[in-house]
Amino acid sequence: MSAHLLRSVIEAADRAISAEDFDAVMEFYAEDAVLVLRPGQEVRGKPAIRKAFTMIADYFGHTLSIGQGKMTVLEGGGDTALVLMETLLSFDGEDGSRRSLSRRATYVFRKDGRGRWLCLIDNSYGTDVLADQTL
Amino acid sequence: MSAHLLRSVIEAADRAISAEDFDAVMEFYAEDAVLVLRPGQEVRGKPAIRKAFTMIADYFGHTLSIGQGKMTVLEGGGDTALVLMETLLSFDGEDGSRRSLSRRATYVFRKDGRGRWLCLIDNSYGTDVLADQTL
Repeated sequence: MSAHLLRSVIEAADRAISAEDFDAVMEFYAEDAVLVLRPGQEVRGKPAIRKAFTMIADYFGHTLSIGQGKMTVLEGGGDTALVLMETLLSFDGEDGSRRSLSRRATYVFRKDGRGRWLCLIDNSYGTDVLADQTL
Repeated sequence: MSAHLLRSVIEAADRAISAEDFDAVMEFYAEDAVLVLRPGQEVRGKPAIRKAFTMIADYFGHTLSIGQGKMTVLEGGGDTALVLMETLLSFDGEDGSRRSLSRRATYVFRKDGRGRWLCLIDNSYGTDVLADQTL
């Protein structure tokens, strides 16, 4: 298990998102990664993911900060890992007061040939994607 | 998206588990797959996973049946998919009456060179693995 390494990778990615350094953010994604924008709506590939992050930053009025709570890393076959994690979002509300919320996220990473962990699937909604779905 | 294909793969795997046909069950796993037995306890590799399934069958007195509820398949990069799914377990309780429970599971699959989806990470507890964990 290299839980500590993947934790530091995710911390660095979240710092880059909070800093709106989207060039740095994109370094953490595989070319054909998928990002869940909201349950039922995904974007695919680095250009679309980058655009989504700029829209998210606008949506939160450039006040979004992302942190990490509990984290479990399950390394499976083929240099792949499933990360289950509390993702902590804080941002300024419309009245200017600081708001925070937490999600139980699920991320799939794979180690590339150079030993870097890249995100293949970014689903910050975890199993909540099932909540609004009919059978 | 090939949600329908992966759904049928999972249905076939769950039928094999319910039938205690563990040779068939093992066909759905990658050699170096990991199975979460309970939060904090994993087994790794086909021989250990097969042994775990025989222990699970014993534990439920050979009455366990597994079904599927809602399912979302997120295909990411590199022929990898994250499955978020309601897994429905039913079994005979100690008093002989039928019991059932449902879990929100997370599974990671990858398509091999022959186009077969193999399970890399089997975590039927989903984000509940975080529940009992300290930071």
